[in-house]
Amino acid sequence: MNKDILVKLLQQRQFKAVRSILDVMNEVDIASLLSELDGKELALAFRLIPKDKAAEVFANMDSSMQTYLVEIFSEKELKELLDDLYMDDTVDLLEELPANLVNRILDTVSAADRALINQLLNYPEDSAGSIMTTEYVDIRESMTVAQAMAHIKETGIHKETIYTCYVTDKRKLIGIVSAKDLMTTDDNVQIKDLMETEIISVATHTDKEAVAQLFTKYDFLAIPVLDTGGRMVGIVTFDDAMDVMVEEATEDITKMAAINPSEKTYFETPVLIHAKNRIPWLLILMFTSVITGTIITKYEDAFAAVPLLVAFIPMLMDTGGNCGAQSSTLIIRGIALSQIRFADLFRVMFKEFRISLVVGSVLAVSNGVRILIQYQDTSLAVVIALSLMGTIIMAKLIGCILPLCASRIHLDPALMASPLITTLVDIFSILIYFQIATTLFHL
Amino acid sequence: MNKDILVKLLQQRQFKAVRSILDVMNEVDIASLLSELDGKELALAFRLIPKDKAAEVFANMDSSMQTYLVEIFSEKELKELLDDLYMDDTVDLLEELPANLVNRILDTVSAADRALINQLLNYPEDSAGSIMTTEYVDIRESMTVAQAMAHIKETGIHKETIYTCYVTDKRKLIGIVSAKDLMTTDDNVQIKDLMETEIISVATHTDKEAVAQLFTKYDFLAIPVLDTGGRMVGIVTFDDAMDVMVEEATEDITKMAAINPSEKTYFETPVLIHAKNRIPWLLILMFTSVITGTIITKYEDAFAAVPLLVAFIPMLMDTGGNCGAQSSTLIIRGIALSQIRFADLFRVMFKEFRISLVVGSVLAVSNGVRILIQYQDTSLAVVIALSLMGTIIMAKLIGCILPLCASRIHLDPALMASPLITTLVDIFSILIYFQIATTLFHL
Repeated sequence: MNKDILVKLLQQRQFKAVRSILDVMNEVDIASLLSELDGKELALAFRLIPKDKAAEVFANMDSSMQTYLVEIFSEKELKELLDDLYMDDTVDLLEELPANLVNRILDTVSAADRALINQLLNYPEDSAGSIMTTEYVDIRESMTVAQAMAHIKETGIHKETIYTCYVTDKRKLIGIVSAKDLMTTDDNVQIKDLMETEIISVATHTDKEAVAQLFTKYDFLAIPVLDTGGRMVGIVTFDDAMDVMVEEATEDITKMAAINPSEKTYFETPVLIHAKNRIPWLLILMFTSVITGTIITKYEDAFAAVPLLVAFIPMLMDTGGNCGAQSSTLIIRGIALSQIRFADLFRVMFKEFRISLVVGSVLAVSNGVRILIQYQDTSLAVVIALSLMGTIIMAKLIGCILPLCASRIHLDPALMASPLITTLVDIFSILIYFQIATTLFHL
Repeated sequence: MNKDILVKLLQQRQFKAVRSILDVMNEVDIASLLSELDGKELALAFRLIPKDKAAEVFANMDSSMQTYLVEIFSEKELKELLDDLYMDDTVDLLEELPANLVNRILDTVSAADRALINQLLNYPEDSAGSIMTTEYVDIRESMTVAQAMAHIKETGIHKETIYTCYVTDKRKLIGIVSAKDLMTTDDNVQIKDLMETEIISVATHTDKEAVAQLFTKYDFLAIPVLDTGGRMVGIVTFDDAMDVMVEEATEDITKMAAINPSEKTYFETPVLIHAKNRIPWLLILMFTSVITGTIITKYEDAFAAVPLLVAFIPMLMDTGGNCGAQSSTLIIRGIALSQIRFADLFRVMFKEFRISLVVGSVLAVSNGVRILIQYQDTSLAVVIALSLMGTIIMAKLIGCILPLCASRIHLDPALMASPLITTLVDIFSILIYFQIATTLFHL
């Protein structure tokens, strides 16, 4: 269904038709369809969503629409919604709402939920605690498979996942049973004979990026979260881990372009915030490249004698910057995927050195030949070829050393990406170039 | 357990101890532990893995270890392994093995499996067909919940996932039921009253990146794959989709650094392949930046008269490149996440224009003031400030226009990243700079 049909049906008050269409649509698609409606239509359409889908649709809406709906909901509607929302989605909602609406919600929920919500809101922003949910299936080791299945039938509908069941004893996590095991095992087998006791878990304060990496490594559907006392307090599910992975990749890519990352999308971020995120690194890099300029002025006599020398500055700087960026990008990505560590430094340097010999030879020869043909000047061709070779070796070494050293001192390697490398490589490429030129031309 | 302990236990022939330790370890961890062993120990340790874990451990090994094991396995061992391996892992294995071992495997499996394997091997490399598996739960709409559960108990152990069950009729997919629905619904309800009939599916030839995006959007555990006749042929599971997401992010990041992407990790890729992946773009960019050099020679008289002008070239080029890279990176990522489309071109341009006014003012004023203080030369300060302003506006516009236009003509926007933008921005920044300088200095 598209927006125009929906609006027309709403205007004609064909609510039954709307309801039966919404009944077969996926929750994510309903949320994106509703996002095209304006206030009054939105409220009307939202109230026509079948009750078992409403909370899920709500969780998939963006925060401005959520805020609007919470504002206009009756006490009863709000209570129904909050009963059906998973705890992690409730916390996400509260983090975006204005204070008066937060209070309205906290007044609506039970005292126990209020305490839980406050606890969840207190976990650090990037921690496992901040993305976990508290609705998981909790069973006992003394149960049989049949008893566990009966327990799930009774309580499972309100759990975010029932596919991983947690065996606890006085809130301590002692085992894990998958729904697959339950469904393929005989009824009278005891949980304690079925459960896995080698458990991979995270702490509430574990960084959410580390949590996401565990999901990629082990292909989990959910991972248990333990508090500092080792008690089970929640689970992180794979869908939230996937979101974290996408967010972290965006954050890395943004940092690699010398931008302070933003949590909002491009269009959601106002012009002034965009500018604020971009200016600091630009200023730092601009004043760093002044050094390159200062070095150039030292060789004023050289390019006064051979003005053509100036013409090759952009080519050398660009090639150096590109070579350095290639190396740093591969190393930064390798570090992010845990394929390269600081201990590999010398192995990486040796590899980049050999690569730069090959790359440097190809580029130096092809550009040297071009200069020979264009200017019929052997010395110039040799100067440029040698400078290229030196610049490329230097650029590739800087490009691999800096990110690895950053990782060693717990700085984000993504900061050592192309812009910073380019600026540093510039300085050295100019030094190499004019050193070779003045020597060979006896300037 | 670490490698040293394992090797010691193997040497002391304490096989029972090894077996009971491996029994409680996670399959992924066993695979990574075994990867540290050499040939003979590896074979010995692999044979000690409990049978229900062996196939999963094997699937998590890298291809050189898999090849070694297939080589030394007896007929019987190979058959047992292939029986337990999921079809997608079997196909992955075959894609990496040398021809003689491929034949050995095809001889071992049944004729039906051989036909299936050949069909799977024929799907294009980046298609849903190439990453799907054929082991899914297939039920009938006439079954009751109890019958479906009994069917799963009987066959489920060999399915890659039992959490999404597919209702088919003459191989046509007519509905989907989740294990959660089955587990929380009364035994005598009929599948046809429980199943969802609004089905999101992909075709065998759907690009695997598009498949992964559906997983991120809808939080699916699995997605059905249909052939051109609409018959169900397999499923893609979320773990494979996660792998695709990581691969695609790596590919984008690599392309954005002007490198042809490689499927292997940094260390797995030989030096000559690294060089081959890096040289083409470096050559193109190197010869493009010759244009900038040629433009500079046109202004030889200008910098002969005011040699200081040369000193500001690196700063202007770097700042322009960085500004362009910032814009292009955000736009490329926005396109990849479907947040920005070509239709937004003018909206993006207007936004980038306003951002560049803010960024340009801050950078122009701060650098202008520095020059005024350092050189006490108002004209120079004005020339540099104006050039910076012009360069930044131009760079941000190029940075947003190029990726969007690339996406319009179905070129990968990631190719329009920092290196290409930098080279193009160089040309214009030099033009802007010398135009302003010659005008204001009356050169």
